[in-house]
Amino acid sequence: MIERLAVIGVGLIGGSLAKALRATGIVGEIVGCGRGWPNLERALTLGVIDRATDDPARAATGADMIFIAAPLGAMQEIFNSIKGHITPNAIITDAGSVKGSVIQDALKVFGVIPPNFVPGHPIAGTEHSGVEAAVVDLYQGRRVILTPLPNTSPKALDLVERMWLACGAVVTRMDHRHHDEILAATSHLPHMLAFSLVDSLARMKENDEIFKYAAGGFRDFTRIASSNPIMWRDICISNRDALRRTLQSFAKELNKLADALDNPEGQELLEIFTRAKAARDRYLDHISCAIE
Amino acid sequence: MIERLAVIGVGLIGGSLAKALRATGIVGEIVGCGRGWPNLERALTLGVIDRATDDPARAATGADMIFIAAPLGAMQEIFNSIKGHITPNAIITDAGSVKGSVIQDALKVFGVIPPNFVPGHPIAGTEHSGVEAAVVDLYQGRRVILTPLPNTSPKALDLVERMWLACGAVVTRMDHRHHDEILAATSHLPHMLAFSLVDSLARMKENDEIFKYAAGGFRDFTRIASSNPIMWRDICISNRDALRRTLQSFAKELNKLADALDNPEGQELLEIFTRAKAARDRYLDHISCAIE
Repeated sequence: MIERLAVIGVGLIGGSLAKALRATGIVGEIVGCGRGWPNLERALTLGVIDRATDDPARAATGADMIFIAAPLGAMQEIFNSIKGHITPNAIITDAGSVKGSVIQDALKVFGVIPPNFVPGHPIAGTEHSGVEAAVVDLYQGRRVILTPLPNTSPKALDLVERMWLACGAVVTRMDHRHHDEILAATSHLPHMLAFSLVDSLARMKENDEIFKYAAGGFRDFTRIASSNPIMWRDICISNRDALRRTLQSFAKELNKLADALDNPEGQELLEIFTRAKAARDRYLDHISCAIE
Repeated sequence: MIERLAVIGVGLIGGSLAKALRATGIVGEIVGCGRGWPNLERALTLGVIDRATDDPARAATGADMIFIAAPLGAMQEIFNSIKGHITPNAIITDAGSVKGSVIQDALKVFGVIPPNFVPGHPIAGTEHSGVEAAVVDLYQGRRVILTPLPNTSPKALDLVERMWLACGAVVTRMDHRHHDEILAATSHLPHMLAFSLVDSLARMKENDEIFKYAAGGFRDFTRIASSNPIMWRDICISNRDALRRTLQSFAKELNKLADALDNPEGQELLEIFTRAKAARDRYLDHISCAIE
């Protein structure tokens, strides 16, 4: 199905796609492209990629599928590098966590959104990064959102969808603005809360002491604060409009919670906590269904 | 060391203490007390307790160590029930997550804080509850904070400390006000954030859909929102003063983050995220040291 796959950014996301496609047998050659030679050499040694280059133009040349799994801040530069080196029928897709900004970057470079560009976002990942963290089943049972534009080629869209289905993913299509609103709430806000909480504790005067008194729940709650800071800076800046609204509205919720503490019976708190527990327990059912 | 231990509230916390002390061989008889007979019968079947009663007064009678592991909202009533049934030299300790309110409850019932009452808080737990969730090694390597008062008997304090050390815990003593400030930041605030985030997502109009697009990080981040709502209502109300300050100050941080999105380079965000990742990775080192 794919004769030559170019993976631009051979980290957790790009490496896991390469591994998964290799396992299905639907890919011929895999060319990896990245900035850091030690990581590329590790990818070669692990057999994740067949060839390596640090030049996106060389990676794109002759590839029929170009997968860009780079930080959002590098997207425009990568589009610039590969422009003029893309085979006419080649399909370009990406894994950016914010779709509006990637589409804007493509527009700036190409003048119009190329019909063979299919913006995408696999909702998978861990707090780890680099090709060593890549696993063959990262996308098994996970959601992938594709956000085609009115001029996106149906054939390109179909091929990208089938690529993800082959990796075991569940594929959904939606408008890129809707994607960015949803992800602001389910992913970008939680990351900002976790980063901000850990930072505010670390800035307290007894910071050496304070983490000692955190229970197991704190470790899970703050796991995402161990994520890559540059990647998350890029995501937050790229989705700033949706995220600003989400942050401000959540800050209002917190002030309402502070007021709710004044009710001696805590009726409102109990209602919030009960609804949340029910929703979260229901959500966990969803997750296990999706995985099995 | 303990001839007869009364465990008032045979759930995760009380049941795990009973199991751990039984394993060390330093406890004679264990009497369990609770409101729900099915849970008490399960505790008897599992061998966690030797005798069961639903009357705190009967549980306290003849016990030389009384461990209260009940929701904070039940503390005053339990003190009332056991008052007049406590053997003169018996030691009372508890597992309440807020120490100021438990001390106030004791003061209301006894008129003075009994010298043999040692307020305590084992910082351990999961989002599960009930005696079925109890495990023998819950306190292994975990912190237990004791908050003695000026008139607390040194002998009682020493015995409670040795009881926790026997369970493998690391015991720290501090003022109860300091405890409540620290826990507001490291535990009560994160729980409120998780409950509030899940509730606000569940109230969005596309709530059936939204949880489908949450990644693995969201599951960990919101695990604590599956905790017992009544227990957490009690904790939040009991620590309302420290928690109100903590919530309001965190809401300010979020508004600052929203402003920081306007900086096109995201320099401030990058600094916050980088400091948080470093602190969290350092904190994880602490945890593994404490456990090993």
